[in-house]
Amino acid sequence: MSNSYGKLFRITTFGESHGAAVGVIVDGCPAGIDITPEEIQHALDRRRPGQSNITTPRKEEDKVTILSGIFEGKTQGTPIAMVVNNKDQASHDYSHIEHAFRPSHADYTYTAKYGTRDYRGGGRSSARETVARVAAGALAAKMLQHYGITVAAYVSQVGNIKMQQEYTELDLNLIDSNIVRCPDSSTASEMIKLIEDARDSLDTIGGVVSCVIKGVPAGLGEPVFDKLHAELGKAMLSINAVKGFEYGSGFEGVKMRGSEHNDQFYTDEAGSVRTKTNRSGGIQGGISNGQDIYFNVAFKPVATILQPQQTINDEGQEITLKGKGRHDPCVLPRAVPIVDAMAALVIADFLMRQKANKLA
Amino acid sequence: MSNSYGKLFRITTFGESHGAAVGVIVDGCPAGIDITPEEIQHALDRRRPGQSNITTPRKEEDKVTILSGIFEGKTQGTPIAMVVNNKDQASHDYSHIEHAFRPSHADYTYTAKYGTRDYRGGGRSSARETVARVAAGALAAKMLQHYGITVAAYVSQVGNIKMQQEYTELDLNLIDSNIVRCPDSSTASEMIKLIEDARDSLDTIGGVVSCVIKGVPAGLGEPVFDKLHAELGKAMLSINAVKGFEYGSGFEGVKMRGSEHNDQFYTDEAGSVRTKTNRSGGIQGGISNGQDIYFNVAFKPVATILQPQQTINDEGQEITLKGKGRHDPCVLPRAVPIVDAMAALVIADFLMRQKANKLA
Amino acid sequence: MSNSYGKLFRITTFGESHGAAVGVIVDGCPAGIDITPEEIQHALDRRRPGQSNITTPRKEEDKVTILSGIFEGKTQGTPIAMVVNNKDQASHDYSHIEHAFRPSHADYTYTAKYGTRDYRGGGRSSARETVARVAAGALAAKMLQHYGITVAAYVSQVGNIKMQQEYTELDLNLIDSNIVRCPDSSTASEMIKLIEDARDSLDTIGGVVSCVIKGVPAGLGEPVFDKLHAELGKAMLSINAVKGFEYGSGFEGVKMRGSEHNDQFYTDEAGSVRTKTNRSGGIQGGISNGQDIYFNVAFKPVATILQPQQTINDEGQEITLKGKGRHDPCVLPRAVPIVDAMAALVIADFLMRQKANKLA
Amino acid sequence: MSNSYGKLFRITTFGESHGAAVGVIVDGCPAGIDITPEEIQHALDRRRPGQSNITTPRKEEDKVTILSGIFEGKTQGTPIAMVVNNKDQASHDYSHIEHAFRPSHADYTYTAKYGTRDYRGGGRSSARETVARVAAGALAAKMLQHYGITVAAYVSQVGNIKMQQEYTELDLNLIDSNIVRCPDSSTASEMIKLIEDARDSLDTIGGVVSCVIKGVPAGLGEPVFDKLHAELGKAMLSINAVKGFEYGSGFEGVKMRGSEHNDQFYTDEAGSVRTKTNRSGGIQGGISNGQDIYFNVAFKPVATILQPQQTINDEGQEITLKGKGRHDPCVLPRAVPIVDAMAALVIADFLMRQKANKLA
Repeated sequence: MSNSYGKLFRITTFGESHGAAVGVIVDGCPAGIDITPEEIQHALDRRRPGQSNITTPRKEEDKVTILSGIFEGKTQGTPIAMVVNNKDQASHDYSHIEHAFRPSHADYTYTAKYGTRDYRGGGRSSARETVARVAAGALAAKMLQHYGITVAAYVSQVGNIKMQQEYTELDLNLIDSNIVRCPDSSTASEMIKLIEDARDSLDTIGGVVSCVIKGVPAGLGEPVFDKLHAELGKAMLSINAVKGFEYGSGFEGVKMRGSEHNDQFYTDEAGSVRTKTNRSGGIQGGISNGQDIYFNVAFKPVATILQPQQTINDEGQEITLKGKGRHDPCVLPRAVPIVDAMAALVIADFLMRQKANKLA
Repeated sequence: MSNSYGKLFRITTFGESHGAAVGVIVDGCPAGIDITPEEIQHALDRRRPGQSNITTPRKEEDKVTILSGIFEGKTQGTPIAMVVNNKDQASHDYSHIEHAFRPSHADYTYTAKYGTRDYRGGGRSSARETVARVAAGALAAKMLQHYGITVAAYVSQVGNIKMQQEYTELDLNLIDSNIVRCPDSSTASEMIKLIEDARDSLDTIGGVVSCVIKGVPAGLGEPVFDKLHAELGKAMLSINAVKGFEYGSGFEGVKMRGSEHNDQFYTDEAGSVRTKTNRSGGIQGGISNGQDIYFNVAFKPVATILQPQQTINDEGQEITLKGKGRHDPCVLPRAVPIVDAMAALVIADFLMRQKANKLA
Repeated sequence: MSNSYGKLFRITTFGESHGAAVGVIVDGCPAGIDITPEEIQHALDRRRPGQSNITTPRKEEDKVTILSGIFEGKTQGTPIAMVVNNKDQASHDYSHIEHAFRPSHADYTYTAKYGTRDYRGGGRSSARETVARVAAGALAAKMLQHYGITVAAYVSQVGNIKMQQEYTELDLNLIDSNIVRCPDSSTASEMIKLIEDARDSLDTIGGVVSCVIKGVPAGLGEPVFDKLHAELGKAMLSINAVKGFEYGSGFEGVKMRGSEHNDQFYTDEAGSVRTKTNRSGGIQGGISNGQDIYFNVAFKPVATILQPQQTINDEGQEITLKGKGRHDPCVLPRAVPIVDAMAALVIADFLMRQKANKLA
Repeated sequence: MSNSYGKLFRITTFGESHGAAVGVIVDGCPAGIDITPEEIQHALDRRRPGQSNITTPRKEEDKVTILSGIFEGKTQGTPIAMVVNNKDQASHDYSHIEHAFRPSHADYTYTAKYGTRDYRGGGRSSARETVARVAAGALAAKMLQHYGITVAAYVSQVGNIKMQQEYTELDLNLIDSNIVRCPDSSTASEMIKLIEDARDSLDTIGGVVSCVIKGVPAGLGEPVFDKLHAELGKAMLSINAVKGFEYGSGFEGVKMRGSEHNDQFYTDEAGSVRTKTNRSGGIQGGISNGQDIYFNVAFKPVATILQPQQTINDEGQEITLKGKGRHDPCVLPRAVPIVDAMAALVIADFLMRQKANKLA
């Protein structure tokens, strides 16, 4: 198990889907940041189940409690522990999955790895763990405010419905203006329809979250292994259901010639170094260059479907399994705050690392 | 700077493109592995410049010397240092780039980060650093042999030329049968033609390396942050010129419904747990499931082109820059052994981590 | 801040003395260990305030709650979070220390480091943090049982009262037979008298905890930096009030000649490699040799005394400060379970690391 | 194996006693430090064998070569690799120790751990590895100059000959004025006599190195686990032959009452916070308080003696072993630069970590 992320701004999460609580310790957050429980809660509310008719209808409050590290409204440089109690975990019935290996879930692999698993709602492999990430990410985002850095993730694709605009053509203030969190309202409507259709067919659908980070100064990232995009990639790939990551020109860029792909430098009126295009995605040689950072994250369709499926049990016997309960037909809308959180955590960590590099 | 990779099987690399040498310390390699300098050299030869007419014509031997950690032909559990001297680094003329910020290179970002840079051939940001990775990867691959694990990377796309076959339809023994390292000979011919065309236009072209890992037992990977695919992603994204990573169904998978995408479990004749399809790419919940692992890595076109380009110098003034010397028109053929190396290093590390998890 | 310890069996602690709670996440504990909350509680009870008339008379229950990682009585390989709520933290009055820098406390250094501090009872610098270590250590000790390893710390010196026997002459089952936790009852009586005398003089007194670890197999420890005794030393020195660490012959050994100091090897009747003497303290070249491991840990006298002291406030002005409340006149009796805990954590971590070293 | 030390200013060493070379990669050293090979060499010369008649008479030049990371006389922020070739390693005869487990050496434990060992001169367990530490430490010391920090280690005890003065009474400029590196010349003479006597008896003798660090600003150290003295302790305990570490009042301090031991704060004429005494050793709560840091390190007598000893071979049979060759009768004089190096590395690392903590 490796439940910590970050080198200097470091989080450690805990909690199973249907255990007593999920939570996080943030270790290394600088002292002196103003933060209120409400700011953490606001981020959690964007991730909360039951927030719209295209997410799981489960009602969970996900109310955060801060146990340490904040005194008189400010971070103290000491570890910040935050906990969200799980609601009513005793009442569920897991008898149908206790011995089943659900297709494309982690039931089999956890059993193979640990010789045991907490079968209640996926246990530790459940995306419920991301509650902890979102709480920590809200704190990181607050730190980024001190540096004028903003992170904005949004849904750019659901199934075959793909937004055609570049991020530069969008009004990122509109992300939360609809329930699917796509800043283009007409694409959003199509996406919602597609998700409703998947849900009504007792099925699920995948998609892409895009993310834009503005205000990052040149110089963040630690080659040769902890390149800025390599850490962003790892952070995103560590989120449940993620299958791919690309930044800047990404997979499309491979088709280009160098002469088309290269970003020309120029000096703007303020005397700052800029690039005319941004196929580099704000990162060159693994270090931020001061331009916008942008990347895409691919999410597979949710594995739990409400149709019968063939699979085996933990004795290797074939069984038919049918999903029960209330599940998301598409994780994308609720994945947006998780991508926000992980991106903020990565940038906060590299900000601290870069300060350390400076002599005197 | 972060020049180490791996938690238990850990490498630390050093060296600038035109400094005295590049090299690596491998720390944590188990004792008792038979390894010869020739085996390391064989891997380096696959990465070597000048190996064909579609790579840079620079002739460098890249001869490895082992300084420690191997005694009487076996690893000792002690750190293994390997060095490759740079050839004739004094003779070059860098006056044209000493003060220039080359487009889509790391000249500007290194200067912004460190306040200084070694401008000789890109210094530390040069892909010459990957010599060290390939040497270390050869050792990791030797360790994987003990476990019956093999890694096979190949070129699956150059520019618009994309192999249509799935990896399961290919003979992976044919990877080195042509100079572009694509196991399908007719696609290989088209790729070679495209690279020659780019070269002859004084331009460059990108592409995709695919990689298949066979024989990995179920249980490798350390959720929730060090998921197997998250570390593979970070390792690949840390390679020069990489813009994207996807595994299993990847970005295409987002278009699918859950009912299409899920991999059904069954028990094979030997009593092993298998899946009928493998959209999971051999990894579920961040842990290997015993099926083949496969992934794709996107490489951008090489930034150094032999055409004049507009850019600025380190005083912000506009200049015209023209590439000199002998460069690769396409990194893909030489990137194959680098992907092999990083994949082997990731799996070796997780093998060790999984052994640690077992009680008694 | 660095609130994590251990590489594979890794703990992260949180909590201020008078905040809402203190607690710990144990990450990396192997799956399959039977553990009950009562076993954790038993260890905490040995550390609890108010346990005798030579400790602080504060009454705190220090009741542990396990939030995750244990299912059906067994560890799951997932992170184990444990929390102890602080009792009644609101009711205290800290006005006398809010602006004071207490002598030989961390008030000044925390302020210098973070620009702020939680002045309530020492905040994060309080030894209350060790509650978390003891809870985690109890789990590590349970893991060590699987390997037949036991840890036994005891008080060997208080002020000038120093036990004369070697550990081999003692019955370590008697450690808890008296309130000072010295296994020799007549020395214990003298120690108790000395502590009572210090207490009655409104003063405090230091001492030494010795520790014996039995059953450690040869091979644990990771040279050249993570030598077994170097990690034990760091772990002990990280405990509040510790001023020194020595193992085996320690500081006394420096006076010896090599011919006296060397431990002769022999083969015992069972065919095992043994040493005739054990000045090495069970560790040679940083690796356990299968003999008993033993070491000493020096604790300074408690800094809080109930006499008036000259000091300054946070504006640099001279003030007279007088301790208030109920404090320990000597930390030694309550330090014993903390030394036990840290020793168990170090050994558990190295057991896991050593398993990782083995090829197939 | 764990051959890296430091979190941000991080060294990784390699090399066996009689392998091809020993060396180090320094990763994380800030850019912009002026350093010459001569400065590194100067530190190595203080550690060099054959430097006086109380060290081993082996003549080795220990000439350092810098392979990377320094360009135009300045560090680049990139990894700095330094190598010292071993002289003439082929010519030795190791037949007498190939199968022997030398008493109080690491022959047995390395074999138990790895199943193999490089028996040539102790292989990796040899103190020859400290060449790499001293080279890296010289670089760290150069960085400390930028902050006005100096490290001064010296020999304070050899066998029973113990210097009576406190460090504050000494002229630390006299450390190198005699071959034993004790700044008090009359004590030095006695020490030298004692070492000569040990040598002439074909025996060896232990001692204590003391170390003073001046100029460290308040605020360095990262509680609760990476306390400044805990890391200093680990760093020192990782040096070959070290058996103990204490700082400030150390083991003697345990005998004191709190009222005697506490360091009173006052404000000096310049308005700085100071303490009237310094039993804290410059560290309170694991964080530097701006006063001098001082500590002691205990070294056991060298295990290799030129007298016959009883031991066993790797088949468990009793044998008589007699040391051959040229060895140090006392490591203390040559241990001084090693303590200097490790102390400088610890402080450099914490300086970087503290910079990272600062918001904006």
